[in-house]
Amino acid sequence: MKAVVFDNGLKFDNNYPKPIPQKGEALIKVTMAGICNTDYEITKGYMGYKGVLGHEFVGIVEEINGEDKSLVGKRVVAEISWGCNNPDCEWCAKKNYRHCPNRHTIGIWRKDGCFAEYLTLPTNILFEVPENVPDEQAVFVEPLAAACEITEQLHIEPMQKVVVLGDGKLGLTTALALHSVNLDVLLVGKHQNKLEIAKNQGVKTALLQDFVVEKKYDVVVEATGTAGGFETSIALTKPRGVLVLKSTVATGKELNLAPIVIDEITVLGSRCGQFPPALRLLENNQIDFKPFISGIYSIDDAIKAFDRNKEKDSLKVLLKM
Amino acid sequence: MKAVVFDNGLKFDNNYPKPIPQKGEALIKVTMAGICNTDYEITKGYMGYKGVLGHEFVGIVEEINGEDKSLVGKRVVAEISWGCNNPDCEWCAKKNYRHCPNRHTIGIWRKDGCFAEYLTLPTNILFEVPENVPDEQAVFVEPLAAACEITEQLHIEPMQKVVVLGDGKLGLTTALALHSVNLDVLLVGKHQNKLEIAKNQGVKTALLQDFVVEKKYDVVVEATGTAGGFETSIALTKPRGVLVLKSTVATGKELNLAPIVIDEITVLGSRCGQFPPALRLLENNQIDFKPFISGIYSIDDAIKAFDRNKEKDSLKVLLKM
Repeated sequence: MKAVVFDNGLKFDNNYPKPIPQKGEALIKVTMAGICNTDYEITKGYMGYKGVLGHEFVGIVEEINGEDKSLVGKRVVAEISWGCNNPDCEWCAKKNYRHCPNRHTIGIWRKDGCFAEYLTLPTNILFEVPENVPDEQAVFVEPLAAACEITEQLHIEPMQKVVVLGDGKLGLTTALALHSVNLDVLLVGKHQNKLEIAKNQGVKTALLQDFVVEKKYDVVVEATGTAGGFETSIALTKPRGVLVLKSTVATGKELNLAPIVIDEITVLGSRCGQFPPALRLLENNQIDFKPFISGIYSIDDAIKAFDRNKEKDSLKVLLKM
Repeated sequence: MKAVVFDNGLKFDNNYPKPIPQKGEALIKVTMAGICNTDYEITKGYMGYKGVLGHEFVGIVEEINGEDKSLVGKRVVAEISWGCNNPDCEWCAKKNYRHCPNRHTIGIWRKDGCFAEYLTLPTNILFEVPENVPDEQAVFVEPLAAACEITEQLHIEPMQKVVVLGDGKLGLTTALALHSVNLDVLLVGKHQNKLEIAKNQGVKTALLQDFVVEKKYDVVVEATGTAGGFETSIALTKPRGVLVLKSTVATGKELNLAPIVIDEITVLGSRCGQFPPALRLLENNQIDFKPFISGIYSIDDAIKAFDRNKEKDSLKVLLKM
């Protein structure tokens, strides 16, 4: 089958072996997939991963190796990690598979990804996509779930002020997700054209250059992935406020942590999320991801798609199988 | 009066003007005071403060400028900050004076401190010391309140595992305070003689060199004040655990914040605390601070006392007025 593989270099492989579903697994024919910054990081060595890339996708179940065949023929998405499911695993018990020490993560850790014509996955991480949600929306469920995760980790009160810093796809998705649950959100970024995407859907926005940095926000979401963004985020967080750290990129700068203690700030690391709340938002047409799409490429042109993804004005590049 | 003053240098002043209580203030005759690392930091320029140093003390109210004279003659301690008390100040409403933007802080910010024969303070931040608590214990109420603060900010469940990193006075006080509320605490440090102080009061301890750093603690308290301690703390915090940052010292090292996101760790800045819970611990003889005392000096020998405080084996140096 066709597949996009990383193995000391990014390759398009026309003849990658088609996977065979093991007991409890489904064989899924991928219809659409999204390129994520993590995929790009992997091509620079992140996680030391080798294999088929990709973890954002929509597909159709063709076959199930197991008793319950109810998902056969259904359009599905899948959470990106699954765990050991041992009865004494506290993470699996809470379905927080991403923290299970024996987890697999699609296209990132011990499991081939979705930039291929087929992949196999355990049926218990699959979710049927509501009929009214097209592939071009459903393919955003994973980053949207990661944004919704903030509301799972943190109770944001309706009168609190929220600011999201960074107008890349992470910041945009987060601002739209928090706005969609009726929170008072301001999105701050450097690019008017990107801010417009959120503004057109009702989110308050501000250009960084026009924005007064004041310690007055109850919740600040750092979505720039830069050390400078982290410092600005601290300067925006009011005493006893919460700084949500959404990006793993920021690293290797001298950071002064004293303000965290002095203002008794909570820094909350936030990563992936569970799918049901994100699927509900999509089903209810709460967020339009069309303006995020910077290009849709055939899997045959995957290398070109990766190049497009690297361009500065690019938001989300999709692959069609 | 005698006073220890910082003004481009640490000075003992035999003739500092005795303060006069303004409306709402008490005149307090200081009987004992403790030197804190913050005092030492101020002598290196922290906060740009100039004036009488010191914020940990016990004293006797000699005079009150106000209607309610009930505290006259009473032995008291005082919280270190007070705020504007305007009806619309959210911080003052919660008695979190330390975050009021118009606060004063004893010996640190806009108010002369307690390393003097007298100081004046608003009566509403004074607390009477229970009779059975000697000065040598009561003088520890401020750092003890800062340790108790963790239980105000965070609900630590009885089955959770807590580790405190660092066996200086901050780490010792924190471990003892958390142990005193029946939590499962392990104190880890480099100095057997310091660890003994906690061990003799029932706290589990381990030498860093014998201690296996594993991601298995629900709550990790960073009390070393070093960048290395911060990194070890992250390595000890289990996914979705809480790293309590108790020290403002750590700064200026390249820090990798990615593990905070990947493991969805909460970093909780924690600073000062309210006095009533700390006074209850002292009244109930839950913690013995005698082994912390590295020396008691007359205020006349304050410079010597500061030198003693700087020595590596020193924990708490006290001044007697």
